Amino acid sequence: MTIATLELTALTAAATKAAKAAAAASDVERAAWLNAVADALDANVTEVVAIADSETRLGAARLTGEVARTTGQLRLFAGVITEGSYLEAVIDHADPSATPPKPDLRRLLKPIGPVAVFSASNFPFAFSVAGGDTASALAVGCSVIVKAHSGHLRLSERTAEIVTEALTAAGAPAGIFALVSGRDAGTALVQDPAIKAVGFTGSIPGGRALFDLAVSRPEPIPFYGELGSLNPVVITAEALKARAGELAAGLAGSFTLGAGQFCTKPGLAFIPAGTDFPALLAEAAKDKAPAPMLTERISDAYPDGLRAVAALRTAAGQPAVDVVSGSVDQDATLNGAAPVIFTSTAANVLESPDQLLEECFGPTTLLIECSGADELSEALALVPGSLTATVHAQPGEDVTALVEQLSGLAGRVLFDGWPTGVAVNWAQQHGGPYPATTSLFTSVGATAVRRFQRPVAYQDAPETVLHPALREANPLGIPRRVDGVLVLP
Amino acid sequence: MTIATLELTALTAAATKAAKAAAAASDVERAAWLNAVADALDANVTEVVAIADSETRLGAARLTGEVARTTGQLRLFAGVITEGSYLEAVIDHADPSATPPKPDLRRLLKPIGPVAVFSASNFPFAFSVAGGDTASALAVGCSVIVKAHSGHLRLSERTAEIVTEALTAAGAPAGIFALVSGRDAGTALVQDPAIKAVGFTGSIPGGRALFDLAVSRPEPIPFYGELGSLNPVVITAEALKARAGELAAGLAGSFTLGAGQFCTKPGLAFIPAGTDFPALLAEAAKDKAPAPMLTERISDAYPDGLRAVAALRTAAGQPAVDVVSGSVDQDATLNGAAPVIFTSTAANVLESPDQLLEECFGPTTLLIECSGADELSEALALVPGSLTATVHAQPGEDVTALVEQLSGLAGRVLFDGWPTGVAVNWAQQHGGPYPATTSLFTSVGATAVRRFQRPVAYQDAPETVLHPALREANPLGIPRRVDGVLVLP
Repeated sequence: MTIATLELTALTAAATKAAKAAAAASDVERAAWLNAVADALDANVTEVVAIADSETRLGAARLTGEVARTTGQLRLFAGVITEGSYLEAVIDHADPSATPPKPDLRRLLKPIGPVAVFSASNFPFAFSVAGGDTASALAVGCSVIVKAHSGHLRLSERTAEIVTEALTAAGAPAGIFALVSGRDAGTALVQDPAIKAVGFTGSIPGGRALFDLAVSRPEPIPFYGELGSLNPVVITAEALKARAGELAAGLAGSFTLGAGQFCTKPGLAFIPAGTDFPALLAEAAKDKAPAPMLTERISDAYPDGLRAVAALRTAAGQPAVDVVSGSVDQDATLNGAAPVIFTSTAANVLESPDQLLEECFGPTTLLIECSGADELSEALALVPGSLTATVHAQPGEDVTALVEQLSGLAGRVLFDGWPTGVAVNWAQQHGGPYPATTSLFTSVGATAVRRFQRPVAYQDAPETVLHPALREANPLGIPRRVDGVLVLP
Repeated sequence: MTIATLELTALTAAATKAAKAAAAASDVERAAWLNAVADALDANVTEVVAIADSETRLGAARLTGEVARTTGQLRLFAGVITEGSYLEAVIDHADPSATPPKPDLRRLLKPIGPVAVFSASNFPFAFSVAGGDTASALAVGCSVIVKAHSGHLRLSERTAEIVTEALTAAGAPAGIFALVSGRDAGTALVQDPAIKAVGFTGSIPGGRALFDLAVSRPEPIPFYGELGSLNPVVITAEALKARAGELAAGLAGSFTLGAGQFCTKPGLAFIPAGTDFPALLAEAAKDKAPAPMLTERISDAYPDGLRAVAALRTAAGQPAVDVVSGSVDQDATLNGAAPVIFTSTAANVLESPDQLLEECFGPTTLLIECSGADELSEALALVPGSLTATVHAQPGEDVTALVEQLSGLAGRVLFDGWPTGVAVNWAQQHGGPYPATTSLFTSVGATAVRRFQRPVAYQDAPETVLHPALREANPLGIPRRVDGVLVLP
């Protein structure tokens, strides 16, 4: 279904009209739309999981869990908007006695308008047609046009049907949601003057190309891209001494989970030099069965990526990495992707950061052996922006400086855990310095809505034209800041 | 003082180091730095106003007021950070019984790092060396490198001295603040890998060129540009009937204020067709004396801009505008800029929006005569994003649809007032759709700090490594969201 420009124009025109209606709807109404979509997906879980499994090979158990996460997410956003803080309502009353006299000024966040959402390959529900980007944009009163991922087109179309039916039945305006597919449609969408923001989850090259289009428009628009992440893990000598086996099991489980196709996969682990941890990790990973990957393109790319890492040489011509376990000469398309563990050294990272610190999508991780805290810090300084960074240390160890460095390079810093697994709640931050994401926001959790809102202040406005959130009596009963003071309802 | 690349590298290295120290300082400490800068500027007001007046010709009264606004702004931000909501602290406690188990997750906003600030020509204090961008970046714990405006170099250098001395005396880290000048230094600053965000106030071409540089870096950074604004005013027939003289006096005062060099100057006013308002406005403006403009370049450009407007032709070859009062053939450099009032029609706007809807810096405004609400709405739909939009209507008139349209094209919607004059408080929104600004934030008011913050979440972190804002006992006593519920201290 490659859609023609004419069709896209019709869709964006409908989306523009729908965005006005959605913006005018109450939070309670929009919450009902989100809950209706969640209910409809839950009601069709068996069917959609079957389609998803046939297209993505992620397995029914994982996919059923992902549907639950997706519907939980829709319901979370319904709760977020009815709570009302997301409007950031602020009232500064007039002060005619001030010099100069102060007007009455009232500010809130309004929906930005029609949003384009690019689905991810690896989360056919949670980061796809009815995923977090769509949910957060609909929540605040935007319309959404989703660009389907080619890896799960049938699922995208079926999900879109379910979403559209549920929205219609719940009374949402026509045109509030649409689906397109094909690369050309995606490109045209980002360039369409009607589109006011873009949500994207995918690769660095693909995401950067679309980012470049979004910011080079006559009217540049925000491009919220989640592009790629190495998710460095640091394990201290103390932690290794205390629980090497447990750490090896945990890391092996995390980097192979879902065939290593999570954006939070730990692709890099810094360990002290000269330990038996690489062998322990190899042992822990040896029973992880090869697993089918999402698409043929992805499973073809995996061994290519592995071989590129294996072929890296130092300036002196020596191999820059060792293969600790697994084979780089595997056929992941035929046999599924099998885990591969590499080791290298901080010295090599310092010599060739660009080559060694590149993401390889699939069940592989690279252990970096470091001699001391200074070398660790120097190597970490070269790690590109990541979604997560993890520390494994022992109670009582002073990791303050390390944590400060990690919080500079990642949006979520974990202690004694593993980065795969992303809670959907108010405190979540799924985003980090470029290339992890292209903005100062999160794409997961309650505050993701802020990406699709723009502030407007009303000066000396009559009550009748004000949004209810800004009326004197606070009819919505929401938290507001009044004359500088935060006031709970 | 064009500084060499080597010098810039030294400055950005110092700024990077200082940003770490500033981030580690407490809010109380940083508030003291801001207050110290405010006190120092107030103590030197006579001297800096004299320098500013000699360079900008804005007059001692206006400039003294602007210093007060600037120091008030510094003190406002000191209050904002000690209040603590700006950290957006969120705590979601662990729930080990959930499926999957939920970790303890705590999120706050951290400073983004060294910030480049480009001063404006027209506010040598409030949007300049110690202006809102600098104050909001320093407030949250960023270091700042200011690119001086060539229109007031001596003032920039003297202000920078005062700022640096005050910061040093107050205990701020060395390198937290620096000044550079020259176009090359500015360009290099935006491209320097150490710089993590840019604040800019200036022209559309200059701002867009720097925006393009910022987003085309290997690591793109946020560019907070305030570029240009027409600030449309809509006057209804009812309002004209009731108070045409008052409206003429108000508009004349606003578009000529400060020689029409405010970013919120009403450059466009939509009025009903066939009234005597143009004549009334001409009458009201006739006593506005020609005023010197900021720089020779600006005063040379003013009549060029006027002549370009006067030369516009309709498709049928007729003049697209009439000159109601004033002369387009003036020498603003020699005699000061004299007010010029144009009229045109909504039909002409619909025919040639790009030509008619271009900002002309200086004491000029364009009246657009409209025949009815539909024509008004169609013409308004073509107005580029603006900082402000204003409605003058009578009590009881239904302006809901009009206000909704205006709030789509501007960040601040005013009722029965004039857009020049920007209150600095919590509710202010000084920003709007492109080209008014290049982001979803404000550059004036309390929430301007959010431009220079990035979120980080800490998962299962020990209390000892957590920022005090996130510790269980809330030692800072700030508002936080805990398990989804907003809690006041």
